[in-house]
Amino acid sequence: MNSLPPFYRGLRVGILGGGQLGKMLLQAAMDYHLEVHVLDPAADAPCRPYTPFFTQGSLTDPETVLAFGRQCDLLTIEIEHVSAEALALLKAEGKQVFPDPASIALIQDKRAQKQFYAAQGLPTAPFVLTEDRASLLAHRGRLPLVHKLARAGYDGRGVQVLRTDADLARAFDAPGLLEDWVPFRAEIAVLVSRNAQGQTAAYPPVEMVFHPEANLVEYLWAPARLPSGVAQEAEALALRVAEALGYVGLLAVEMFLTEDDSLLINEIAPRPHNSGHHTLRACDSSQYEQHLRAILGLPPGSTRQHSPAAMVNLLGEPGAEGPVVYEGIEAALALPGVYPFLYGKSSTRPFRKMGHVTLLDPDPEALLRRVEQVRSLLRVRAVQ
Amino acid sequence: MNSLPPFYRGLRVGILGGGQLGKMLLQAAMDYHLEVHVLDPAADAPCRPYTPFFTQGSLTDPETVLAFGRQCDLLTIEIEHVSAEALALLKAEGKQVFPDPASIALIQDKRAQKQFYAAQGLPTAPFVLTEDRASLLAHRGRLPLVHKLARAGYDGRGVQVLRTDADLARAFDAPGLLEDWVPFRAEIAVLVSRNAQGQTAAYPPVEMVFHPEANLVEYLWAPARLPSGVAQEAEALALRVAEALGYVGLLAVEMFLTEDDSLLINEIAPRPHNSGHHTLRACDSSQYEQHLRAILGLPPGSTRQHSPAAMVNLLGEPGAEGPVVYEGIEAALALPGVYPFLYGKSSTRPFRKMGHVTLLDPDPEALLRRVEQVRSLLRVRAVQ
Repeated sequence: MNSLPPFYRGLRVGILGGGQLGKMLLQAAMDYHLEVHVLDPAADAPCRPYTPFFTQGSLTDPETVLAFGRQCDLLTIEIEHVSAEALALLKAEGKQVFPDPASIALIQDKRAQKQFYAAQGLPTAPFVLTEDRASLLAHRGRLPLVHKLARAGYDGRGVQVLRTDADLARAFDAPGLLEDWVPFRAEIAVLVSRNAQGQTAAYPPVEMVFHPEANLVEYLWAPARLPSGVAQEAEALALRVAEALGYVGLLAVEMFLTEDDSLLINEIAPRPHNSGHHTLRACDSSQYEQHLRAILGLPPGSTRQHSPAAMVNLLGEPGAEGPVVYEGIEAALALPGVYPFLYGKSSTRPFRKMGHVTLLDPDPEALLRRVEQVRSLLRVRAVQ
Repeated sequence: MNSLPPFYRGLRVGILGGGQLGKMLLQAAMDYHLEVHVLDPAADAPCRPYTPFFTQGSLTDPETVLAFGRQCDLLTIEIEHVSAEALALLKAEGKQVFPDPASIALIQDKRAQKQFYAAQGLPTAPFVLTEDRASLLAHRGRLPLVHKLARAGYDGRGVQVLRTDADLARAFDAPGLLEDWVPFRAEIAVLVSRNAQGQTAAYPPVEMVFHPEANLVEYLWAPARLPSGVAQEAEALALRVAEALGYVGLLAVEMFLTEDDSLLINEIAPRPHNSGHHTLRACDSSQYEQHLRAILGLPPGSTRQHSPAAMVNLLGEPGAEGPVVYEGIEAALALPGVYPFLYGKSSTRPFRKMGHVTLLDPDPEALLRRVEQVRSLLRVRAVQ
């Protein structure tokens, strides 16, 4: 491994992906004055207006990733659908790559992820691997089941709840897994970080509230409202996952809290996560800063949450497609403790993540009322 | 005045100056996805790695500022030493310019600033205008006096304390003013914002502790430790200044708290200010976001300070000149609640502002101890 210059002396950090998570990483990188290079397939990626070091290109094409990576000192990701093969080659060539390409490859494959939990004794819902639609039928006696594609699932895509024979007939026809449908009281996420020296930190768990139709997080609540002791247990479990992977960077661990108050790992993401946007406003260090500290080998920042917070995703309204209008954004800004963050995508489409709003209020009841106000005021529509 | 597109639809915001304050404005502009254009004379200005819309050029040359401004929709500043004449022309051409060029011109001239306070009945130390060194002699009976150059003072430059005849003989030989030397208990700053609709907000006052030799802020303490009622009085006074100017944007008002607990305005700055860096970490909205909200005509954000904070300027060590080394930065990062922000200037020189560190701790005593730790650990030196 090459030794790196001090981070403040022109260290070239390459991010695979220039979406909203990349944009918030770039924003955090300004504190450390890192030189951030970004690779993204979209000419108008959210990062585009904030770096002169932008390359337009595929994240999954090994040659493109190799060429991009060779001009950087240290590589990281903001999306896991990248060429892990190219990252492994860059690592072999002496580049620093965090998270490790092996961790990224494992997480890209939901089957490998589940097998890893099983092998490590990490709690997760019981599952079987399946090869295609026909092989699902053997399990119809166990409906309802959750069907997950092995690859390319993102934001609820690639996940189906199968309840009936008709659902089975419509199921994805590709390698995947079937998971027992576990009734849960809450879905939470814990963000943890770990650096190469093994220093770790965990944020207080956050609680996700899902949109019933789109299977996307509708708002989140932080810290999560959990029975006594469960938050500590969840943090410890997330740290166990990071340790088991020998992980370096920020890791998001999504979990179910079952009806009998036990925790099951749902899935993990090897990067900053949608469930951690509130850390920018509500915690001493944001998840983005924390990721950078971890991959630079610096000690973790404080994860103290100083104010109760909520986060509302700004999703494209159903039926709206085209140049975006943030209807009601000025009225929302006039409410106390309401902080929009826009991703800068020029066009909206139904349920597209266009931005988010963080809400802060020392009083949780006022906070909840304000979440409802923002959700009714602020609409992501298309120009008529 | 042209009507502008909504701020989220590719509004081109031009900043005159690409230094650290511009960099923090740019960082805040990412939340709103503004397209930020930057003009700065230095090829390696702190903003340089974070915008593809950078123009290298003089801030005081009217033609350069005009050409830069014509490619933007809305113009603002991060330093007041700019061509106010060019900004006035841009305004006449229909560009939005905030703060108003007339406010900038007034503040550029310390004599005009003082006359404005006098005319508006705003409290400030008694003063006389002077034309040159010879004209100072007439006031030797009133020593000690503070001598301020009318123009080009910045960071303590252009300010002299005259105590003796020898000081008088060494004084600046240019138009300026002489101010009574007022013994003070504290020097504080209040940041206020105002938008074109007249909506205002004020941050809690901050207390500045000066380096005895360099006349630069050494650390600041927020909120300021003030006798009961003085904070409210200081906020009201700062808002009176903004109203009297019909000001739009963020305004920093530096004040003395005299030994009899009255407030005197020292000077003002028409932009985010060194005394407000802590707002990035310790307040719901930062001064940078607040400036953007004000110039965009949006409602002000909450100025609530959620944690006691201190801010230490990272100044180049005396005697050090050349490529910079932040000695001890990793050790400082290992302390709880310690957040450096580096400006990215490649070379240090004595007392140059190279970065700052924000410190947060719910316990003020722990905070003060940590300020001392950071000041002894972290040194800005040159490569040997």
